Formats: sequence, C-alpha cells, structure tokens
Amino acid sequence: MTLTKPPEPMKPVESMGLRYDGQKLWFLDQTLLPHREEWLVAEHPSVMIEAIKMLRVRGAPLIGVAAAMSLGDFEQRGASRAELVEAGRQLASARPTAINLMHAVDRCLAARSAAEEAQAIFAEDVALCQRIGRHGAGLINDGSNVMTICNAGAIATVGIGTALGVFAAAKAQGKKFHVFVPETRPLLQGARLTTWELNRLGIPFTLICDNMMGIVLSRKKIQTVVVGADRIAKNGDFANKIGTYGLAVMARYHGVPFYVAAPHTTVDHKTLRGEDIPVETRHAGEVIGTAGLAAAEVYNPAFDVTPADLVTGWILDSGLKTKNDFLE
Amino acid sequence: MTLTKPPEPMKPVESMGLRYDGQKLWFLDQTLLPHREEWLVAEHPSVMIEAIKMLRVRGAPLIGVAAAMSLGDFEQRGASRAELVEAGRQLASARPTAINLMHAVDRCLAARSAAEEAQAIFAEDVALCQRIGRHGAGLINDGSNVMTICNAGAIATVGIGTALGVFAAAKAQGKKFHVFVPETRPLLQGARLTTWELNRLGIPFTLICDNMMGIVLSRKKIQTVVVGADRIAKNGDFANKIGTYGLAVMARYHGVPFYVAAPHTTVDHKTLRGEDIPVETRHAGEVIGTAGLAAAEVYNPAFDVTPADLVTGWILDSGLKTKNDFLE
Repeated sequence: MTLTKPPEPMKPVESMGLRYDGQKLWFLDQTLLPHREEWLVAEHPSVMIEAIKMLRVRGAPLIGVAAAMSLGDFEQRGASRAELVEAGRQLASARPTAINLMHAVDRCLAARSAAEEAQAIFAEDVALCQRIGRHGAGLINDGSNVMTICNAGAIATVGIGTALGVFAAAKAQGKKFHVFVPETRPLLQGARLTTWELNRLGIPFTLICDNMMGIVLSRKKIQTVVVGADRIAKNGDFANKIGTYGLAVMARYHGVPFYVAAPHTTVDHKTLRGEDIPVETRHAGEVIGTAGLAAAEVYNPAFDVTPADLVTGWILDSGLKTKNDFLE
Repeated sequence: MTLTKPPEPMKPVESMGLRYDGQKLWFLDQTLLPHREEWLVAEHPSVMIEAIKMLRVRGAPLIGVAAAMSLGDFEQRGASRAELVEAGRQLASARPTAINLMHAVDRCLAARSAAEEAQAIFAEDVALCQRIGRHGAGLINDGSNVMTICNAGAIATVGIGTALGVFAAAKAQGKKFHVFVPETRPLLQGARLTTWELNRLGIPFTLICDNMMGIVLSRKKIQTVVVGADRIAKNGDFANKIGTYGLAVMARYHGVPFYVAAPHTTVDHKTLRGEDIPVETRHAGEVIGTAGLAAAEVYNPAFDVTPADLVTGWILDSGLKTKNDFLE
C-alpha cells in the first residue's frame, strides 16, 4: 500500500463567464448581456443545470468547464459518490449537442477527485484557446474583412475563445481587420455577445441580420470565415450554431476560405459522421417572441451540421488540420 | 377638333391592403400586423409617401398601385398639374429599389387623367396576379414542402399576390403542401405577414428563423422555392428582399428548383444587369431594435440581388420564362 496525497482544495480561478472565489462558484448570466453583467452563485449542480439549459451559461467549451467546476464544488461540499454520479448524469444531459459537456463530466467522474479534475479542465481550456489562437492568427490577413457567426469567444470558453480567440490573437499581432457579425437568431448571441466582446477587444465590427450573410460575402470582400463548433465528428463534419451550414455553403459559392476553430475536446471520435450528431430542437417561444406573435408551428433547431467537404481547415489546439487529417 | 369624354370619377375598389371608398383612399398599416388591422386615410400624397417609406404600405406591386391611387385621388381633389408632378416625383423616390413604383407614377403622369390611369393600374394588378398564379400553380407538387421568403402575397399587391399567389392558386386546385416561412429580419414580414396570410388561406406552414433556411433545405425535402421580386433586370438578374440571394445559392447547392414570381411591371428593361439595380440601405435602428442594443455599426440593406444563373424560371403574367427568354 502506498500513501496517496489528499485531493487539493479548489483554488480561485476566474474567466469572463465563470469564477470560483475559493468558496463559491459564480457564473455570468449571459442572457442579460449586453445590458447587465449579473453574476449568480451555483450553490448546487441543479442551479448550473438550469443555467446551461436556459443558456445563461453557453458555448461548448464553457459548458464543459462549468459542469466540471460544478461537480468539483459539489464534491468539496461533501456530496456522496452517488450524488456526484447523479449530478453528473443530469449535467451531461442538460444539452445534447456539445460533446465537451459529456467529456468533462466523464473525466470528473472517472478521476480520483472531481475537484482536482475540474481545476485541470479549467486550466487546460485556457491553454487550448491560446494554442488555437496561435495556430489561427496567421489565417487573418492584415486589412481584411472577416466573418463569424454566433459567439465563440472568451465567454464561450474560460480562455480567449476559439473563433474569436483567433481574432484576438491576430489583433495582438498588430493586424487590423473588420469583423461582420450576424445577429444569430433566435437568441442573438452575435448581436448581444460577440459585439460586446469585440468592443472590449477594440476590434471594429459591423452587425448584420442573418439573412445578410449572402450580400456581405458578395459585396464586402470577405477573405476569411472562422466559426466555432459544438461537436466535430470523426470525419470532420461538425455541428455548430444554426446558420453555420448556410454560411459554409455561401462561403464555398464565393470561394471564401471557411475555418472551424475548436479545442480537441470538441472532437468526438465515437461520432463517425455529421448525420450521427444529435441536433437539439428548442421551444417555439424563442422564435415567436421577437414579433410577439400568437402561436404558430415553429421549427427551432439550435444547431446545424456542416459537412467536412465545405471546410477549408480545422484550427485545433494541436494545429491547423485539413480534411486528410480526418481521414487518417 | 374632336370631343373627348371627360375623365371618369374613381370608383370604389378594395384589396387586402388598399381601399378607395368613392371618397377617400385608405391603406392598411402593415407595420401593426398581425396584432392590429388598422386602416388609415391617405388624404394627401404626403401621407402615402410617409407610409411607403415606413413600410406601412410595402410590396413592390402594392406600392406602385398605392402611389398611382394616391395621385388619382389627389387629382380628383383638384390638384394642379404642377402639384401632381411634384407629388409624383416624391412618390417615385420614396423607395429606390422596386421599379413598379416608378413605372406606375410615370404612367399616371403621362396619362390624360391620373385617376383613370390609377384605376386601370389597380385592375391590371389584380389580373396580373391571377395570371401569375395560373402559370405557377403547376410547379407546386401535391404533398410537397415548399419555401418562400418575406411576403409576396395579397397584401404586397392588390390581387392574390405573386409568390403567395402561386401557392393560393395551387391550393385552389386542391393541392396539399406545406410552406416553410423564414421570419425575414429585420422587419419580420415573413413572421408577421406571410404567416397571417397563409393562416387565412388555410395553407399549413412552419415559421423558421432566417439562419435555418440551410438546415430546412437539407433536411425537410423542399421541392420548390418561390420568391417575389422588386426589380428584374433585362438579363433576368433580380432584386428582392434581403436573404433571397443566399436562399438562391443554398437552393442551387441542394438542387432545389428556384422560381421568381412577378408581374411584367417589375421588369425594368432600362436596367441591364443586377449590379445596376440600386439597393436601398435602411437605418440601423431596424436591426438593433430587437436586442435593444446600444448603437453599433450596422449594415442594413433591404434587398439583395440574385443573378439569373441561380434562377430556374421566372413566373411572369405572360407565362413561365427561362433564361433564354431574357437573352433574346
């Protein structure tokens, strides 16, 4: 028998959307941005589950880290193994598409200590974002116009972001460029969150409606499109915020390079192809809310799936990948 | 010298969005639909100009007829020739893209009587819509899913509509089909107006956000797309509501037939190609209003231009046309 070191207590960590202050786990309620920056305490995993379901906490990498930190915090408050497993099960099923969530929960439950593992996952996500930024920054041309969709930024991760991390890294290299930001209906993550982040980064941008992506590609000399991902299948097909697929089709039509930026935690080797990725369908109220319409039949998929054929390259933390890398 | 018959006084006419009761010209304020059906009196062309600018009266054919009726009414109230010409100039420039408006004003000012000509234009538009519906109905397959964008219906004309007129005619033939309706940001003419019309027509539909067009084309077995037009150039390129171009690109990628339905009054032989069509850019408030965002730089083109190459056929009142017809 060997002596094992007891698990370390969780240390304070902080990102733009998640914070552990040494005692409590806090999250920024992203549904209130950009109007109010309100931080809430997740004193129990049930609070985090609700926050993830309601998109108060959103972004594939962030919901993985947030779920892990919630399990770590729960463990430190004395949760039993059975309680941890049940909380993990519920966290993992809070949203079906982003694989980071399932990966993070699995890791915490398999580890000696959920708290230790959560801290490792947090630190890793910061480092992964840095590497993605480093590999992607060279794809952004000085003086160019670029486009993204939804929000794959610092508040979608606990680091500098994925797609926006690429922009942040290019900006840090002194490059000047202009970002076109589709508002991203129904919940307007582009209009509310990406504009807010780009403002803080000092990167100029133009907000457009989602149906303006075509005219922007045809008239605004877009040189690069970079988007995030919620799950990348083994063959390179990937799920991301609804509208990504159409953007990829239009980018191809215009001959504009189209990149996906994501950490390797987003790659799901158990999902062979895009058609095997479950796409979450959300409630009609999100769509009809804007117009204050009476009930109508609504189709509200939160994601769509883009085939690898439409992707120029995958900007992973391990480097810039091409389709051949996924065929190996 | 011959005796000429004096101009006839304008007779009562009525459509879903425009009404002359024998004394006053009324229009439905479409910005309030579907919540309120409020009719306003255009007692002077200045009221109609404001209504067209603010999209209370919208739809390429309708704004042409409404401008004509406004001039006819003005003439009957004793406007001088100079006043008529000045009102015509201002009406024609209320919105820059739809050519029907300029055509209708030109006709009224060139005619012996603006009132007589306005009545002729009204009656013609009803007949043009009927013919478009007749030529297009055969393109809608029984049991199929179809898609449109924005609103090209009865309230965008004074007849049964253009794109929706095709659906109405197919429905009248007893066909069953399902329409996918993009909400059409920023002013939600799809969500507010097309759903309202389809409800009245008894045609089943599903409302989607504009960024869902791609996934609908890939997963919902769409067999036909039919859209309206604000101006068709001599070579078949056409301007229509923003988002139409992207829909055409995506329809092509999916091999889905893509049709434009419009009266010949929408064809502008003086505009040789799509790039010569002026595209109206509207104010930022329309885009940032939904999220209640603070000011951000916004690009808000009301239309985009689709090249003839992406069009399967043009459903005109004179028949179903192909690209060859535009090359003659």
